[in-house]
Amino acid sequence: MAKDVINIGVIGFGNVGSGAVQTLQENAHAIEMKVGTKLVVKKIADLDWDRPREITLSPNQRTTDAKAVLDDPEIDIVVEAIGGVKPAKDFILTALRNGKHVVTPNKELIAKHGHEILHEADSRHLDCYFEGAVGGGIPIIRPLKQCLAGNRIERILGIVNGTTNYILTRMTSEGKEFADVLAEAKAKGYAEPDPTDDIEGNDAAYKICILASIGYNTSVPLDKVYREGITRIAQRDLQYAAQLGYVVKLLAIAADTPQGLELRVHPAFVPVSHPLASVNDVFNAIFVRGSSVGEVMFYGRGAGSRPTGSAVVGDLIEIARNIKVNGTGRVSCTCFEDKQIKPMEEVLTKYYLRMEVRDRPGVLARIATIFGEEQVSVASVVQKSSRGDVAEIVWITHQTVEKQVRRSLERIERLDELKQICNWIRVEDEQ
Amino acid sequence: MAKDVINIGVIGFGNVGSGAVQTLQENAHAIEMKVGTKLVVKKIADLDWDRPREITLSPNQRTTDAKAVLDDPEIDIVVEAIGGVKPAKDFILTALRNGKHVVTPNKELIAKHGHEILHEADSRHLDCYFEGAVGGGIPIIRPLKQCLAGNRIERILGIVNGTTNYILTRMTSEGKEFADVLAEAKAKGYAEPDPTDDIEGNDAAYKICILASIGYNTSVPLDKVYREGITRIAQRDLQYAAQLGYVVKLLAIAADTPQGLELRVHPAFVPVSHPLASVNDVFNAIFVRGSSVGEVMFYGRGAGSRPTGSAVVGDLIEIARNIKVNGTGRVSCTCFEDKQIKPMEEVLTKYYLRMEVRDRPGVLARIATIFGEEQVSVASVVQKSSRGDVAEIVWITHQTVEKQVRRSLERIERLDELKQICNWIRVEDEQ
Repeated sequence: MAKDVINIGVIGFGNVGSGAVQTLQENAHAIEMKVGTKLVVKKIADLDWDRPREITLSPNQRTTDAKAVLDDPEIDIVVEAIGGVKPAKDFILTALRNGKHVVTPNKELIAKHGHEILHEADSRHLDCYFEGAVGGGIPIIRPLKQCLAGNRIERILGIVNGTTNYILTRMTSEGKEFADVLAEAKAKGYAEPDPTDDIEGNDAAYKICILASIGYNTSVPLDKVYREGITRIAQRDLQYAAQLGYVVKLLAIAADTPQGLELRVHPAFVPVSHPLASVNDVFNAIFVRGSSVGEVMFYGRGAGSRPTGSAVVGDLIEIARNIKVNGTGRVSCTCFEDKQIKPMEEVLTKYYLRMEVRDRPGVLARIATIFGEEQVSVASVVQKSSRGDVAEIVWITHQTVEKQVRRSLERIERLDELKQICNWIRVEDEQ
Repeated sequence: MAKDVINIGVIGFGNVGSGAVQTLQENAHAIEMKVGTKLVVKKIADLDWDRPREITLSPNQRTTDAKAVLDDPEIDIVVEAIGGVKPAKDFILTALRNGKHVVTPNKELIAKHGHEILHEADSRHLDCYFEGAVGGGIPIIRPLKQCLAGNRIERILGIVNGTTNYILTRMTSEGKEFADVLAEAKAKGYAEPDPTDDIEGNDAAYKICILASIGYNTSVPLDKVYREGITRIAQRDLQYAAQLGYVVKLLAIAADTPQGLELRVHPAFVPVSHPLASVNDVFNAIFVRGSSVGEVMFYGRGAGSRPTGSAVVGDLIEIARNIKVNGTGRVSCTCFEDKQIKPMEEVLTKYYLRMEVRDRPGVLARIATIFGEEQVSVASVVQKSSRGDVAEIVWITHQTVEKQVRRSLERIERLDELKQICNWIRVEDEQ
């Protein structure tokens, strides 16, 4: 197609939309040279044009009406940068039905409705790219879909939420409790005023849902992703982790096992020697083990205007290159497998368990007996007398099926000697 | 193009060729589903078919004549897996002239003749992919060329040679000297019988030459890459590094500066907190800073049959997808800029300098005076009396232009009090 220019329309001119436009403007010449055609931002729709912005736009680039973008026959590619499901989904489907390619870094939308959207795109030989939906600017979708396409993916372990990683890093380095660090993170803008989606693991669940769908060639329903946030992590747990040679991270995990796919988001003990252990603050990283490549890891800033803008612009350049050779629709949805999802109770991993008991003779033996009867094999145990007649016991198990740990804990809960089960955290030390 | 199958020919069935074919065989079904067409290994040329191999081939897949692959009109893509320049270059050019796409993980060839080869491919709308040439299975070429294409790349820092990283890691963890660890590495097969290309930095120079060409959109002549190996690194240097909060790594660096591109391979002090510092043993990692994305890092196994095979198969899948939509030649050579290369003497960085002097009054002052006169600003200095009248002095400088350090060292060499300049190593602590 001998097009003079490739026209881009942007819907949503907040954080991500402006990051993308700024990147396009700054590097316009190099991008034109790489593509062989000029990429022009023709129209940007946003409801609020009063907010001060650093980017200079001409008046006819601005509109408050998304339809002005969606219905413009000259626009080749639409960037959806408003987030959420409504009305983003309708905008994207309309764009596709109007013959436009789409770029969206919308993790929630892709996690919930990715298949519907990608099938709509595929059926029209259009591209719908979403590199920015996971890991911000970190290249991970394209590497997984393309560079590693020859591998059977065995395991994906991700630190994919910057807010929780920041909180856990600060708790570890400053010795503070969760609530205090959360308050600081809010003050600094590293946590949203309502941080629920981050700290409860929902955001990470969106992302692992997307990565698992690609990695395992299967449609992953979001509600099958087990999720547990970081609100119960205590300073004491972090101290034990350090003593035992671990750090605590919120991991998003997708693993292929003979009993089905494991899909889970939860805090985990990670050995200090693991590459993920040194991913700190707001940084993200995705660790992948493939049958041929072995272990690879992708690291960088997982959010933010410019990093996510970088991913959006990378997608725009790719689509532009496809348009140039009439080769759009090259990489379609690859969910050709129908994989079972393993229930959380069947997951096999190791566990850290911390409990307080009344310091009486025989209590350790009684708990150990329960573990033995429930087939929970103990790797190590530390008992410390603390205040008065209360002792704290910390157990690390060998690989155990989760339901056996849960059953043990239910039985231990009923012991007279138990004061409380303070916490239990999975230990992920098998790469 | 409604092709029933896409036929692949392989030239060279050693380490990499067999890793690629094994990956193709193991995951044949998934690959067919991803591409929409079967990928068939039609012919493999190798001079030696007596060597035992784990892969089962039919007799008509085997040939000893590369021409049988290059001239087969049914073969769509040729994998060059023999390495080196001769005859690999001729094979690739012949394949392209015969209308075949090419995959090659040949770093030396791409570093030396990449532009000629890519232009030949571009002029015929053919694909020539080389993801395996840098970092083995680590996705880095495609992420840099595509995902990060919207960025102005500011800096690339790579640990791109597994042998030297293994040696430095062992020297650090085991307290041994270079020669001893090299001997062990040879015995274990982690170093070649003739390890010159690795330990002198040539292999790393090929790789940074390729990365810089892509990152900076410019043709980088290999002989402009400064290179210095790890043979002079002493145990004592590693100990000082540790005391000062650094590890020593062989870095391949390409940095865009107002005075031109810096292109250099040399050992360097890296702060322990830097993501590259925890890249150990044979692992590789490439750290990139881009104008929009900020810092990203790509980590994994930088060599080996299966990891490099993973990269080759990723490239084959991409080309097959391009063939399917008639969209080959999408991503062409992007060397549209003509960048100056900065001479090594003009590089601006920090330095660690270790020297032995006769322990006489005033010697420290005399050396410090030379540094002052040559505009070398000292950040810290440690003097230790060692044996007899000999003292060891270790200096860390602030950012300094390299020629000023060299000039200082020349003057210090002439001091009566100097016993020897034991070593000087660049310190890379600016991200």
